Amino acid sequence: MPTMTIDDDCGRHNRFLRALRRQRVDTTPVWVMRQAGRYLPEYRATRQRAGSFMNLCRSPELACEVTLQPVERFELDAAILFSDILTIPDAMGLGLGFVEGEGPRFARPLRTLDAITRLAVPDPEMELRYVPDAVRLIRRELRGRVPLIGFAGSPWTLACYMVEGGPSEGFARIKKLMWDHPEALHHLLGVLTQAVRAYLEAQVRAGAQAIMLFDSWGGVLAPGDYREFSLANLCRLAQGIDRGPEQVPLIVFSRGANGHLEALSQSGADALGIDWTQDLGEARARTDGRVALQGNLDPAAMYASPASLRQQVDLVLRSYGDGPGHVFNLGHGITPDVDPEQMRVLVDAVHQLGRPRDTLA
Amino acid sequence: MPTMTIDDDCGRHNRFLRALRRQRVDTTPVWVMRQAGRYLPEYRATRQRAGSFMNLCRSPELACEVTLQPVERFELDAAILFSDILTIPDAMGLGLGFVEGEGPRFARPLRTLDAITRLAVPDPEMELRYVPDAVRLIRRELRGRVPLIGFAGSPWTLACYMVEGGPSEGFARIKKLMWDHPEALHHLLGVLTQAVRAYLEAQVRAGAQAIMLFDSWGGVLAPGDYREFSLANLCRLAQGIDRGPEQVPLIVFSRGANGHLEALSQSGADALGIDWTQDLGEARARTDGRVALQGNLDPAAMYASPASLRQQVDLVLRSYGDGPGHVFNLGHGITPDVDPEQMRVLVDAVHQLGRPRDTLA
Repeated sequence: MPTMTIDDDCGRHNRFLRALRRQRVDTTPVWVMRQAGRYLPEYRATRQRAGSFMNLCRSPELACEVTLQPVERFELDAAILFSDILTIPDAMGLGLGFVEGEGPRFARPLRTLDAITRLAVPDPEMELRYVPDAVRLIRRELRGRVPLIGFAGSPWTLACYMVEGGPSEGFARIKKLMWDHPEALHHLLGVLTQAVRAYLEAQVRAGAQAIMLFDSWGGVLAPGDYREFSLANLCRLAQGIDRGPEQVPLIVFSRGANGHLEALSQSGADALGIDWTQDLGEARARTDGRVALQGNLDPAAMYASPASLRQQVDLVLRSYGDGPGHVFNLGHGITPDVDPEQMRVLVDAVHQLGRPRDTLA
Repeated sequence: MPTMTIDDDCGRHNRFLRALRRQRVDTTPVWVMRQAGRYLPEYRATRQRAGSFMNLCRSPELACEVTLQPVERFELDAAILFSDILTIPDAMGLGLGFVEGEGPRFARPLRTLDAITRLAVPDPEMELRYVPDAVRLIRRELRGRVPLIGFAGSPWTLACYMVEGGPSEGFARIKKLMWDHPEALHHLLGVLTQAVRAYLEAQVRAGAQAIMLFDSWGGVLAPGDYREFSLANLCRLAQGIDRGPEQVPLIVFSRGANGHLEALSQSGADALGIDWTQDLGEARARTDGRVALQGNLDPAAMYASPASLRQQVDLVLRSYGDGPGHVFNLGHGITPDVDPEQMRVLVDAVHQLGRPRDTLA
């Protein structure tokens, strides 16, 4: 049997998936949350042609185009499906729209217990067919250059948007529901868990090579509420999703839930997203090699000078330390007014400063 | 020597200070961040008479009036000076104003390194005289009913507002300064540390019976940056402030910095404010009896039914457990549209469900 060279099995086309599986890589892989987004002029041009954000999401051709833009411009190690976590509630009939500068807004938020009981699980190959269609098209156009990540919002996070109607500061509506009518919220979360499961399974069947759950609002809960209303359904999904013959890896990002890393590392996820307020080395110690870790540069570092940015990249790589299982990312999405050239500085710094990582820590 | 009854030394006038010193109390004391605020109709009336928020802060008579309002309406165990953390930068010449619905805004934010080097420490008995004057007046009008808390913003938090110019989402400006010109930020933080120290010492001399440092933005920093740019100056203040012959206790609230509770408990503070995403019992174990803890009900619980609110109060009391050193509070300020009657429910629940706490844990 001939000796494989590092390039054969660990190059750009494979380094991200190998790192998620805690296998040997030639250098640390990197991708960036919201890498297909407003900081790129080519994205803004496609977005303008689309007319609206939802038109962009609903067109497999345009979604494919913007998904590929950052991968073609930078040496990123993964592509992520261009879509939105709120496609599921939209397919449930809540009427998703985007107000410029304010974010998502539902025309028909959940305002009564009755509205909750009437919800049904959408069929992803019917009401959400544009999403698996986009996955199929993107896989074809990527031609194996880098793996494609599919994603969904967590049940708790979707419920927050559906009950609040849009972004919220205090989450007063959903928390009132949680405390005054916990059985109604559990019903809603149960329906959403089924919907997210079917949706991610459809993405896997369509060709997603890794999947990610965004629990953007887990961190607004007190610990007991977090375990009952957010973590429980993350575990159900991590253990219940049929991930296909390849057993595609699952990344869970529960933002602001750094007090729960031990429990999250036992959820069944292969990797955890980590925000920048958490020391990576400490997260690694607390999760004890059960999962890979993805993160966690402060997104504001993209505004620093190139020299400072490189230094901050180095600090993140050092905080993770040697051994396998690190996927480099920002600790939150890249912001719209970052200079795109900083992305090149970031990606080059990770690849140059990231050492080959062996399977032995 | 006659036996003291519980009422003699542990009643409303004293329970808060005893809890901060981890001494025996008859029941758990409670006060609420922003207890003098917009949710109270009598506050809104005074605020309207004042004409502007800063007029209200700058008038000792009006500041005294609103400080006393919640103490007269509810059985709260402490009063807190009505003021704003941004009085210091205002006295430094940055021109503080408040935009309705948007929060504070400086007319002359720090936008050059030169502007930073020109800053001088204000004399609290001159440029900020209205603050110690308000403290003196409030102490007189309180007539010993409950203790009075003075406060200031932390150097890091003040620097955030001064450099960003107002509230910020990503803190890109101050973080760029931090990474590209760390020596300039350290200079700014050094000036602010002197200013905060002089300001809090003036409040203590004027009669403040406890003092609190609000590090509202500590939690936006990565761990290494937090230690260097936020924690270091909290420690300098905790150890450096002359707290007078009575050695008035110091509470430090570093919001979102739950990963740093061990270090904070060794800062020299007597008590730590805790937000609602942190389990109090775990915080107590990690700080190992070195400090009292203040918190930490989810502020959204004020929107739940009275029965749910009582239940949530009970959960917080239970998470702290038996033994001394608990001051009940929300994990963040009370929000403007809460029904004031819920404050009565909260205070009564804490006093009824909070058990007498002995000095032995």
